Amino acid sequence: MKKTFISLLILLQSTAFAQTKNTPNLIPFVKPIIGTQKMGHTFPGATVPFGMVQLSPDTDTLSYEKNGKYNPDMYRYCAGYQYDDRTIVGFSHTHFSGTGHSDLGDFLIMPTTGALQLNPGTANNPAGGYRSAFSHANELAEPAYYKVKLDDHNITAELTASNRVGFHQYTFPASDQSHIILDLMAGIYNYENKNVWTFVRVENDTLITGYRQTTGWARTRTVYFAMSFSKPFYQYGSQNNSKKEVYRGFWGRFDQAHNFPEMAGRQLRAYFDFKTTEGEKIKIKFALSPVSTEGALRNMRTEIPHWNFDQVKQESQSLWNKELSKVTVEMLNADEKINFYTGVYHAFLGPTTYMDVDGSYKGLDQNIHKANGFTNYTTFSLWDTYRALHPLFNVLQPKRNADMVQSMLAHYDQSVHKMLPVWSHYANENWCMIGYHSVPVIADAIMKGNAPFDAMKALEACATTARHKSFDGIGYYMEQGYVPDDKSSSSVSKTLEYAYDDWCIAQMAKKLNRMDLYEEFSKRALNYKNVYDASIGFMRPKLSNGSFKTQFDVLSTHNQGFIEGNAWNYSLYVPHDPAAMIQMMGGDKRFIPHLDSLFTMDLPDKFFAETEDITRDGIIGNYVHGNEPAHHVAYLYNWTTQPWKTQDRIRMILKKMYHPTPDGLGGNDDCGQMSAWYIFSSLGFYPVCPGSEQYALGSPAVKTASIQLENGKVFTIEAKSQSDKNVYVQKVLLNGKPLTQRYITHTDILNGGNLVFYMASKPVKK
Amino acid sequence: MKKTFISLLILLQSTAFAQTKNTPNLIPFVKPIIGTQKMGHTFPGATVPFGMVQLSPDTDTLSYEKNGKYNPDMYRYCAGYQYDDRTIVGFSHTHFSGTGHSDLGDFLIMPTTGALQLNPGTANNPAGGYRSAFSHANELAEPAYYKVKLDDHNITAELTASNRVGFHQYTFPASDQSHIILDLMAGIYNYENKNVWTFVRVENDTLITGYRQTTGWARTRTVYFAMSFSKPFYQYGSQNNSKKEVYRGFWGRFDQAHNFPEMAGRQLRAYFDFKTTEGEKIKIKFALSPVSTEGALRNMRTEIPHWNFDQVKQESQSLWNKELSKVTVEMLNADEKINFYTGVYHAFLGPTTYMDVDGSYKGLDQNIHKANGFTNYTTFSLWDTYRALHPLFNVLQPKRNADMVQSMLAHYDQSVHKMLPVWSHYANENWCMIGYHSVPVIADAIMKGNAPFDAMKALEACATTARHKSFDGIGYYMEQGYVPDDKSSSSVSKTLEYAYDDWCIAQMAKKLNRMDLYEEFSKRALNYKNVYDASIGFMRPKLSNGSFKTQFDVLSTHNQGFIEGNAWNYSLYVPHDPAAMIQMMGGDKRFIPHLDSLFTMDLPDKFFAETEDITRDGIIGNYVHGNEPAHHVAYLYNWTTQPWKTQDRIRMILKKMYHPTPDGLGGNDDCGQMSAWYIFSSLGFYPVCPGSEQYALGSPAVKTASIQLENGKVFTIEAKSQSDKNVYVQKVLLNGKPLTQRYITHTDILNGGNLVFYMASKPVKK
Repeated sequence: MKKTFISLLILLQSTAFAQTKNTPNLIPFVKPIIGTQKMGHTFPGATVPFGMVQLSPDTDTLSYEKNGKYNPDMYRYCAGYQYDDRTIVGFSHTHFSGTGHSDLGDFLIMPTTGALQLNPGTANNPAGGYRSAFSHANELAEPAYYKVKLDDHNITAELTASNRVGFHQYTFPASDQSHIILDLMAGIYNYENKNVWTFVRVENDTLITGYRQTTGWARTRTVYFAMSFSKPFYQYGSQNNSKKEVYRGFWGRFDQAHNFPEMAGRQLRAYFDFKTTEGEKIKIKFALSPVSTEGALRNMRTEIPHWNFDQVKQESQSLWNKELSKVTVEMLNADEKINFYTGVYHAFLGPTTYMDVDGSYKGLDQNIHKANGFTNYTTFSLWDTYRALHPLFNVLQPKRNADMVQSMLAHYDQSVHKMLPVWSHYANENWCMIGYHSVPVIADAIMKGNAPFDAMKALEACATTARHKSFDGIGYYMEQGYVPDDKSSSSVSKTLEYAYDDWCIAQMAKKLNRMDLYEEFSKRALNYKNVYDASIGFMRPKLSNGSFKTQFDVLSTHNQGFIEGNAWNYSLYVPHDPAAMIQMMGGDKRFIPHLDSLFTMDLPDKFFAETEDITRDGIIGNYVHGNEPAHHVAYLYNWTTQPWKTQDRIRMILKKMYHPTPDGLGGNDDCGQMSAWYIFSSLGFYPVCPGSEQYALGSPAVKTASIQLENGKVFTIEAKSQSDKNVYVQKVLLNGKPLTQRYITHTDILNGGNLVFYMASKPVKK
Repeated sequence: MKKTFISLLILLQSTAFAQTKNTPNLIPFVKPIIGTQKMGHTFPGATVPFGMVQLSPDTDTLSYEKNGKYNPDMYRYCAGYQYDDRTIVGFSHTHFSGTGHSDLGDFLIMPTTGALQLNPGTANNPAGGYRSAFSHANELAEPAYYKVKLDDHNITAELTASNRVGFHQYTFPASDQSHIILDLMAGIYNYENKNVWTFVRVENDTLITGYRQTTGWARTRTVYFAMSFSKPFYQYGSQNNSKKEVYRGFWGRFDQAHNFPEMAGRQLRAYFDFKTTEGEKIKIKFALSPVSTEGALRNMRTEIPHWNFDQVKQESQSLWNKELSKVTVEMLNADEKINFYTGVYHAFLGPTTYMDVDGSYKGLDQNIHKANGFTNYTTFSLWDTYRALHPLFNVLQPKRNADMVQSMLAHYDQSVHKMLPVWSHYANENWCMIGYHSVPVIADAIMKGNAPFDAMKALEACATTARHKSFDGIGYYMEQGYVPDDKSSSSVSKTLEYAYDDWCIAQMAKKLNRMDLYEEFSKRALNYKNVYDASIGFMRPKLSNGSFKTQFDVLSTHNQGFIEGNAWNYSLYVPHDPAAMIQMMGGDKRFIPHLDSLFTMDLPDKFFAETEDITRDGIIGNYVHGNEPAHHVAYLYNWTTQPWKTQDRIRMILKKMYHPTPDGLGGNDDCGQMSAWYIFSSLGFYPVCPGSEQYALGSPAVKTASIQLENGKVFTIEAKSQSDKNVYVQKVLLNGKPLTQRYITHTDILNGGNLVFYMASKPVKK
């Protein structure tokens, strides 16, 4: 892997630094290619921080079905790109980063030369379609900039983007047969009926508008576009591959395939023809809108009113630099610095902007709403991101995080279920994963004083969501104190996460002086106890009749009452009261060896196959870092008499699970959660329990770090005697005073100041 | 037929008259049931004048396909209702009136009792589905009111409507199993893939919102709704019959069939359950919007903020009375008065309002627009309605007609083809029929001084449309002076109608002092001469090479260069210069016997079968009144030395083609064109050439008539010595002065005054 990477590094060094006064240039330390191989599910293309457009190459767009059955290979293409592939199908405008499920891949554009080909072809026979072979030697991926040579067409493709506009620049050879293809059939997690409707208008010889409406992970989703060419096409056409439109009426009298400006149907591909001279650049601005083609056009004209590609690239890289430099670090080596800033980059990809420049967006109720006084965001992978990503935002992006909460509350207002988002994107709730983890995000913001919204209303929304009896076992949970395994799958995971979420509600209620709610939810917060089987020392599925499930395998993740985790990992999930949990599990004497063995035991092979979303590299012993349920686990030693074990475990995980290579992520990045873990842990602390003010101390990987807070203050971290071997913390000084507890608080950070770790190669066992 | 009608008359007499001071009650003279049998294609349901909602019973919703082939029986259901049917499937909210093609039938509601049935069943086995038998004895159709007993369910259904809201009132028996079904699969001209997407939200236990998106005659069409119940349902559910949605994601974890408030898919049926006491009324307000569910809800709350069914009925009937009474007539008998006012009723059904109460509507470009300063209308069946309906509006509805022109100009602005509407509905151009007959509508308004819009812009729009070379043979027409039959079908019809439309543009251009356009289009207006074959005395298809088509049958309507007419009827189509046409055809000596024989010849049987859209009753000799191309023909005697033949022909057509019975229309009413012909001709004059100021005189059928003009003036007509035998006009006095010409002008009408016909049983041959 390193070998292929050398060319990238060389290319990177030649990149003009997007440096402004007093801002270090951190662009060279971000490698969007990290995570594009195997299970990382990141994309290498161009986007700005939290941008609506993610303009990125798709190396395949496999169908959801193969021979009438689900096609498991498609799973590899959650982000549209796999590093091992040798062909690029085209460049589409929307991508999730690091998800374990997907959608999107809207509006695939491909420049070609030679005889017009309107089908994409296959990886094995790229010449049979418009796709092209490419080589990583000719590929460059930076924040807000992507470049690749399309070998089959002798075209150099460059991509950049503003928030809502993708900007393409294609350098053609001399050709009388140069084409730009707009494939509306393409898409990620595609299948025959995913396209509900597509619509294209050729407004004039440089402007196209239209939309794509799909039913996928988002069940009812429409994205509008406006597409502008820098040079007029001299002819155009389309192919309507819809098989099932019975009635075509009087449109049949037209030649709809050639130069006909109004296309509509379920399966459209359009092309635009040019004659090009050697080295001629054809540029395309492609704007998105969640509202209308009119909105897309306004977005385009507002954000990029010119044709200067380099200017957009430079401005967008400056945006990245501004965000990246909110935390400046020195690490032990360049690889770690690349890991760190690529982590920050991945963490700042989403949630993504979901409104037009005028604040309009389509809501969950399918009506057009206006975001008043906040930026509306979408793509909330909350089961993942409540853990560390949103807490990270409360440090580095408090304004944006508050807007995200506002976006969740708008979702709640529009929800016919009267529920906060579970996993939502593009004005749709897709109900993926479990829990009601908008709650900890809201609680974390409120408890950390980052709540420039109606906190009381937010509390009500949390409580209403948590009492939604018909949702996913909540009714049983409220009645019996646990989710019975015979009533609802993943019953233990749900019980544990509901209990934690309930604790969050209680904390907010207390702060907001709603003691009725505080009592109600404090009680519910203890429900984790109801699924603990003291006889075996694990959380265990319980049936409606109160007895534990008899057939039970603590190593398996399938049908054991858990999801994306086994009993070993999930049984440790009481983030709101680790001390009580440890007591429940037999105190230090029994708990410490138990936790030790999690990291050291030898997981039988058969369990790897069933561990979702991660490679074997994502597992240490039986500790699964590639999925989220155990992300806090290494910090649990802090609540025992052996906190130094947290320190070496953290450093080990940082080392083993993150690498500056395409296959550098051991599991899905999950919209930045994996990266947020890296960032916090590198800085030396971690939010074990979002919704509390505390960050558990670990072992920093940075030598120094400086956090520019939005309140104007600066919080610095220093690790004295930092080295690969010195993973143990001898002592910690906060603003010069020794810390007596094993945590710092959010207030400590907000106040600015310095945190100094004294590192050593041996643990301090006292 | 008469027999079944007696019950209706009895019921009518018991109806409370919606009479206000000084306004005669004309409601009893309107029978919406006229035209519902055979080919009239009218609907009997409830609507207000030019209303957005047409809430009407559907007696069947046949599929477009039967065993994989087009199902010709479906054609009978253009308006959803056929009088001979014995079952009602339900009540849907949108219907065309009198069209020969269709779409719509949105949101079918059916109240039922007993075991829940969610499929409609068949006409032969109504018990197998939710549909119900009914009897015309228990049916009453009035303007804005429809009532029927649903025998299978023992429910009395009553319907009324405001502009944008359908109001249902169902009187139930005592039942623990009372249901309201909302069938989103139902529709007119339906087929498997017509539904693109449907979406339903159960907002609470009395309010539903949603939309239906279809690809039918309108290729890309969405209608939004809000549905409110007067009584909460105690449970509800739905059936998703979509076969092809591959990915259902995490929705599968829900019981989506029962009490689940968010439904979406291509084929949905929902039901709402009640327990009812004997005689309990459940009312439903069902509002539409072309924009959003929010808009629909606003429309509902604005138009009908209460639950008083009778009040809405009364107010809506008052609206009708106000419109109907713009012309008050005395006829020779009640039947004729019923024909007359039912004609006015049918003429005032459309074009229909197409905007929310706040003026918003979805445009042809799929963006949301606001109608500033005018009411936006849709459903322009222009090939039909330019002839007499829009001219009638210039007399009786000038404000609305000017708004219709504004609506056409908005369509033009939004058209990517830069064309005025051809046949448009619901923000879609369906390209049905031929010509560019927005032009005569605009010209008629401008020439008659009814142009409170930008006339110069309108002229430009007309000229641009008429020069659209890639549209339907216009390029050839501009180059060769005719549409070559080997290049474009219906070539003669197109040539003749283009020539007339061009004359209209020339007249506007002259009035607006654009002499360049006047000259260009005056020249084009003579193109009718290029398809006249003097050797046979008929218009005849000409090929590209300038020779006439050799295989040619002057009686056939199929593949002879015409559409909805044969050479006999269509060859007389030079409305802008009948005198020149008659000269061309050999002058009086040859023309009069030729025209005589049109009305008297015996059309061989085989030609009836191929005559579209009309019953045998719609033909007199070879004169086809049931289709439009010959609607002016009986007036052509006025341009000969034997004008009295116009007089008896007109009276004969009035008698033979219109009856106050369900089968009373000999052909499609065509959005009011057939009715407009009746109204004008009954009043004694007719706009042979819209775009000119002149109305050709015929023979009035009224005894007296009084037209209340919008300018406050009154124009009265009197037929002295009127009788069934006295069909000939001895002399005509306008404001007391004998008319020397055979026409009156629009100015004569606008000035107010009186037109007196002296009738006699013998023609005045001088």
